[in-house]
Amino acid sequence: MTQPAEAAVATTAERAAMRRALELAAQVPARGPNPRVGCVLLGADGAVLAEGYHRGAGTPHAEVDALRRAAASHGAAAAHGATAVVTLEPCNHHGRTGPCADALLNAGVARVVHAQHDPNPVASGGAARLRAAGVDVLGGLLADEARALNATWTRSLELGRPVVTWKLAASLDGRAAAADGTSRWITGRAARQDVHRLRAGVDAVVVGTGTALADDPDLTVRHVPLTGPQPERVVVGLRDLPASSRLARAAAAGEPVTHLRTHDPHEVLETLGYREHRHVLLEGGPALAAAFWRAGLVDEVVAYVAPVLLGVGAPAVADLGIGTIADAARLDLLDVAVLQRDPADPTDTPTVRLTLRPRKER
Amino acid sequence: MTQPAEAAVATTAERAAMRRALELAAQVPARGPNPRVGCVLLGADGAVLAEGYHRGAGTPHAEVDALRRAAASHGAAAAHGATAVVTLEPCNHHGRTGPCADALLNAGVARVVHAQHDPNPVASGGAARLRAAGVDVLGGLLADEARALNATWTRSLELGRPVVTWKLAASLDGRAAAADGTSRWITGRAARQDVHRLRAGVDAVVVGTGTALADDPDLTVRHVPLTGPQPERVVVGLRDLPASSRLARAAAAGEPVTHLRTHDPHEVLETLGYREHRHVLLEGGPALAAAFWRAGLVDEVVAYVAPVLLGVGAPAVADLGIGTIADAARLDLLDVAVLQRDPADPTDTPTVRLTLRPRKER
Repeated sequence: MTQPAEAAVATTAERAAMRRALELAAQVPARGPNPRVGCVLLGADGAVLAEGYHRGAGTPHAEVDALRRAAASHGAAAAHGATAVVTLEPCNHHGRTGPCADALLNAGVARVVHAQHDPNPVASGGAARLRAAGVDVLGGLLADEARALNATWTRSLELGRPVVTWKLAASLDGRAAAADGTSRWITGRAARQDVHRLRAGVDAVVVGTGTALADDPDLTVRHVPLTGPQPERVVVGLRDLPASSRLARAAAAGEPVTHLRTHDPHEVLETLGYREHRHVLLEGGPALAAAFWRAGLVDEVVAYVAPVLLGVGAPAVADLGIGTIADAARLDLLDVAVLQRDPADPTDTPTVRLTLRPRKER
Repeated sequence: MTQPAEAAVATTAERAAMRRALELAAQVPARGPNPRVGCVLLGADGAVLAEGYHRGAGTPHAEVDALRRAAASHGAAAAHGATAVVTLEPCNHHGRTGPCADALLNAGVARVVHAQHDPNPVASGGAARLRAAGVDVLGGLLADEARALNATWTRSLELGRPVVTWKLAASLDGRAAAADGTSRWITGRAARQDVHRLRAGVDAVVVGTGTALADDPDLTVRHVPLTGPQPERVVVGLRDLPASSRLARAAAAGEPVTHLRTHDPHEVLETLGYREHRHVLLEGGPALAAAFWRAGLVDEVVAYVAPVLLGVGAPAVADLGIGTIADAARLDLLDVAVLQRDPADPTDTPTVRLTLRPRKER
């Protein structure tokens, strides 16, 4: 579809509005089924009519939020002939809310400037629908910034499954436990706290039955701020958990705990993806993590390495199917941080946190 | 011995001269049997008469160097009534050169201000000797700075043996080789180069016969600047090396290669200490390193951890005699650095270097 030449370039006011829309979107934590989106409505004179952003599942999308505010401030016809500047291509999807493309058309918006193109196969097509209805549409303005705002969400939609982060804790010599099986604590207090931060950023926390039986973990987010519900707690494997275990008791109390009786990582992610989980934290144990790794289903590794030597003991990483050095699993190092020890506690230790991503060649 | 009140405090000129003497000392790399020492001679009026520093084994000590320069510039009686400002207590030892205490007395120096007290049991006593001869002596000025200048030398003398640095290279999961034994290369190019920098700073490089037989290493310093001779190359263990091995050929060519037919780390360090080695780099293998560790003879660990997973394969660390987590060997983390990969080489990897010191509680 041909467009008027002036539509292909954003105005200074539109660029400024897009920066503001990115700011608005960033107010909400990045988590859950939906992306973070901001919208600024500009009048024909380039002045701001209203701002809006999406506050989470079940609440109005950013465009609708902005349209409602414009109507509340300036009357029902406020958006007539206006330009909507929005960080994501308006959706064309009947989900919990109606399509934003329709809402913009109904409000009489004349032009839409959006950043990221919608990677969601069930929601995309909004730009085409708007154009077909005669709206002037410019896409891709500050698209990288907008994509970064919803990096995990975008990746999950592109992959067609939840993004998987594998959390790994080990001694400097790669052990997860000492010779007698004791493992509390190898990493330091700050590292254990940091795991709660990781959990607070995902939709589900996954462990194998081995870890659930050995450690009787709670798997909830504690000690750090949590926006929205606790991540779903998921146990993978065929064995039963005793009714007295923390996870079984939480499930009995109606908390979101799921036992998936499978060993197939694909099946696990299919189930969790169906629940619109975009980001899953794999907390162990080594056998489960190795199964995900071998299936090519690990997208990020967060390794907590303590400056501790154990010599012998259970390895933190199981057989990954690597026989020779040429097949070693090489990762890109995204970040290295030292989580300091508590100086008041002589038994505490610092921990080095490595954030890694499997190399694309895999 | 009582001293005049004014002797107990350094003058402004003396403090400035000590800072200059520290600078002079720091010009020489820290390595070898002798400490780095600088000396500034001040005339009775506080003006600088001459400067000197020690350039390494077999060359004049700093005090003698400064006295000679003073005589050359200002005549034989130049140092009469002068003040010698020196970073280390003047020695009282007939080694390769005569005692500096005698040289200062013979030159007619009236006052000596020194920084660090001499920790060397066979060389100390210089201050007492000077005082007994009527020289005004002030010790301890900027002593911490002076000690830091010769930290390893000082530590070696205090321990009564060479300081031992254990170099460890491993995958993120603590492996030194893949399942089939292949191990070249786990760490990145910058890490392998960094090992040459480590070697260039020590007096001897030590490996077990297992490593010597498996890897046929050269163990020389290459690719980095080296001041002074190559470190002595030491093989520890009972097995013979084939005459065709790199180390056997180097020994046959008269290069400093030593085979110590023992498994006892104490015996190894006794031999190397007798040769006035102050700093030894333990390069492997795991069994030798574990023997040093269990004997409490590891003073520092430099761990090169590559962002690589192997899953199975030979562990980088052997049995350290640790049975339970409460006995885990905890280390203090002195430094963490990322040695970047070569962006032009897609097979290269970054490496995280951790510099660690066993906790004192051990």
